[in-house]
Amino acid sequence: MGCASLPSAPTGSGDLGVVVERAQGSLKVINTTNRQMLGSIDGLGDLSHASVVYGRDGATAYVFGRDGALSKVNLLTRQIDVRVQQSGNSIGGAISQDGSLVAAQNYQPGGIKVFDAKTLALVADIPAEYAPGKLSRVVGLADLPGRRFVYSLFDAGEIWIADLGSPGSPNIAKITKFKDVGRQPYDALLTPNGRHYIAGLFGEDGLAMIDLWAAEPKVARILGGYGRGQQPLPVFKMPHLRGWAVAGRHAYLPAIGRHEVLVGDTENWTEVGRIKVAGQPVFVIARPDGRQVWVNFAVPDYNRVQVIDTQSRQIVKTLEPGRAVLHMEFTPRGEAVWISSRDDHRVSVIATDSFETQAVLSVDAPSGIFFSSRANRMGF
Amino acid sequence: MGCASLPSAPTGSGDLGVVVERAQGSLKVINTTNRQMLGSIDGLGDLSHASVVYGRDGATAYVFGRDGALSKVNLLTRQIDVRVQQSGNSIGGAISQDGSLVAAQNYQPGGIKVFDAKTLALVADIPAEYAPGKLSRVVGLADLPGRRFVYSLFDAGEIWIADLGSPGSPNIAKITKFKDVGRQPYDALLTPNGRHYIAGLFGEDGLAMIDLWAAEPKVARILGGYGRGQQPLPVFKMPHLRGWAVAGRHAYLPAIGRHEVLVGDTENWTEVGRIKVAGQPVFVIARPDGRQVWVNFAVPDYNRVQVIDTQSRQIVKTLEPGRAVLHMEFTPRGEAVWISSRDDHRVSVIATDSFETQAVLSVDAPSGIFFSSRANRMGF
Repeated sequence: MGCASLPSAPTGSGDLGVVVERAQGSLKVINTTNRQMLGSIDGLGDLSHASVVYGRDGATAYVFGRDGALSKVNLLTRQIDVRVQQSGNSIGGAISQDGSLVAAQNYQPGGIKVFDAKTLALVADIPAEYAPGKLSRVVGLADLPGRRFVYSLFDAGEIWIADLGSPGSPNIAKITKFKDVGRQPYDALLTPNGRHYIAGLFGEDGLAMIDLWAAEPKVARILGGYGRGQQPLPVFKMPHLRGWAVAGRHAYLPAIGRHEVLVGDTENWTEVGRIKVAGQPVFVIARPDGRQVWVNFAVPDYNRVQVIDTQSRQIVKTLEPGRAVLHMEFTPRGEAVWISSRDDHRVSVIATDSFETQAVLSVDAPSGIFFSSRANRMGF
Repeated sequence: MGCASLPSAPTGSGDLGVVVERAQGSLKVINTTNRQMLGSIDGLGDLSHASVVYGRDGATAYVFGRDGALSKVNLLTRQIDVRVQQSGNSIGGAISQDGSLVAAQNYQPGGIKVFDAKTLALVADIPAEYAPGKLSRVVGLADLPGRRFVYSLFDAGEIWIADLGSPGSPNIAKITKFKDVGRQPYDALLTPNGRHYIAGLFGEDGLAMIDLWAAEPKVARILGGYGRGQQPLPVFKMPHLRGWAVAGRHAYLPAIGRHEVLVGDTENWTEVGRIKVAGQPVFVIARPDGRQVWVNFAVPDYNRVQVIDTQSRQIVKTLEPGRAVLHMEFTPRGEAVWISSRDDHRVSVIATDSFETQAVLSVDAPSGIFFSSRANRMGF
C-alpha cells in the first residue's frame, strides 16, 4: 500500500461501512458523512448470507462467507489482510469484547472455531458434539463479556457458552451447557445490554431465554404464543432474530408467518401488544434512540418498508425504496437509515425525520449493510 | 504532514481517545487497544474544565477551552486544523446529530455560538438575552435530533432550544423558550435516548425536566427532594449532571452535599432508593451495559472510586487508583475504565470484571478523558 493513495489529511474510520455485493463476492466501502462509495474489496467468495463484525479500531472488518471462508479486511486500504478457509459451510460470527478473538459458527462441520483477531491463527476448535460422534449445526452466536461466546445447537436443542479465559491462559475453552432448551433453535439474539440471550425455536412455539446476569443462569421458556401456532401458516422467510428491536422497556418482534409485529415487555417477557404490518416481517430494527422501529418484509411484500412510532405503536410511514429490500442499517446517531434493494441494485439513504431520500448509490445486488459503529456494540 | 509518520498499514480511529493535560494546555492521544500513548496535541490554551466532542469520522475532535477558544484537532496527525477565539469564557459545547455544526456555550458574553464543523466559520451567534440588555450565562448545552441544540440560562431560569433548520436553509435559528423553569439551572443532561432533558437547580431543591417526545413539550418539576435540602450542607464540588447514569429503567444521581447516590425511576421520575457511598459524589457513570455504576468523589475523598452493582444496589468494590480522581471513561463495550488521578499524574486502566489494573500511563495532571466512541452518542 503506497502513500500516494492516502488522503493528505487522514480521516478516521468512524463514518465508514460496507455493503455486501452478494453476487460479486465483494464489499463496497462507503462513507456515511459524504454518502459516497469509496471503493471495493474483491475476492471474498460466496457472500450469500454473509455477515461482518468490526475490530476495535473500526477499520478492520471480519467477513464470514457462506462458503466457510473468514477474511480480515482493511476499509482504509481496501485490501484483504488475511483469509482462511475455516469450514465447509458457515453462517456468521462474532468478536470478543476485548477485540482479541474472532469466532465463526459453522454448519459443516458443526461447531465453532475461534481465531486470533490479528493473525486469524486458530486458537480453539470446539466441535458441537452433543452425543458421541454427532455434531450439531451452530446458530445464534454472540459475544459475552470476558472472552466468552454464547451459541445455540440447532440439532441438539442446546445452548452452550464457551469461555476462552484470560489472554495469557492456555487456549482451552471451558464449556457451560444448557440442555433441553426446546426443539431446533434456529437463530438467537442478545439484548443490547447483554443481559438476555433469546433463541427462536423452529420445532415448537415460544422462545428459550437465559438471564445471563442471574446468580445461576438457567433456561426459561417465554412468549409461548410466539411461533407458527396451532394452524401453521406458510413462512416465506424465517425472520432474523438479531434484528429485534429493544426500545425502552419494550421489545418489538417479527411474528412468524403473520403480518404482525409483536410487542413484549422486557421486564417480565410477556406479550403486551400486536401491530398490523404490510407483510411477513423479516427485520424489525429500532432507530438508536428507540423512538422508531423500522420493518422490512418477506416476498411478496419485500418492496416495502414500514415505520412504527413507538409512542403510539402506529405505522407512521410506508416507503417503497426499491425491489427486494434485504437489509437496513442506521447511522450511529440515527439521523439516517441505509436500505439495500437487491433487485434494483441500489442502496437508498433516507432521513428518519422527514423520510426524504438523501442519496441513492448504485450497488450490484446489495444485501447486508454493516457500519463501523458496530465495533462499539456487544452481541453482534 | 509527511507520509513517513503514518503507519504502513493504516488503522482506524475507533479505539482512539484523548486525555486533557490541564496545566500544559495539551491533549495526550491514546489508544485503548494497546493501552498506549500515541503523542500530544499542544498549544490549546487554558484547558481547566475543558471538554471535547467528536466529529462523525472519530478522528476529528473539537476542544472547548475555558478561555473561550475552540480548536478543531486531528487525532491521527496530532495537529490543530483550525482554532478560533470565540468568546471570553466558555464552558463546553456540543456537535449536531449530522456532524455539520458545532456549538459552544458561553459565560462571557452569555449565549451560544454555532460554527461550521469543517471550517469553524461562524454560522449563528445567539445571545442569551432574556431581558433588554441582559445576557445570561449558558450551561447544560446538548444536541437534539435535526440540527437543534438545547441549553439552560443560569441567570434567567430558562431553557431554550435553538433550531438551525436544514443544511441548505438560511442560518437563522428558530428559538423555542421555556420560562420559569426554576432558579439558577447550573448544569443539565440529556438521557441516553435523547428523550428527557433535565436541569439541576442551584437556587432551589428539585430538578427541571422536559419530555422532548411529548406532543407539546413543557417543563415539569421532578425529584423535589433533590438538592441541598432544608439544612444545607457544605458542598465541596457541585456534581456533574452529565455523568448521571441511566441503567435499565433507573437513573443513578449524585446527591448534593450528601454521601449518597440516589436512585430514580425513569418511568415516573420518583426516587426509589439511596445508596451510601464514601464521600460527596461528583461523577456517577454507568458501565455501557448498565450492570455497574462507578462513582468518584469531591475532596477530601477524591482518592477513591466506588463501584455499585445495579442488581443488588450494593457497593461491590472500593478502589484507590491515585490522588485527585477527576474523571472516568469506559471503553465502548465496557471491559475497561480509564481513570485520571491528577495529583499522581497518572491514568489507570482498570478491568471492570476483575478490577485489576491493566496499565498505568504517565500524564501531567490529567483531567477529562474522552474516547472517539462519543461520536456515536447523542447528548454529549
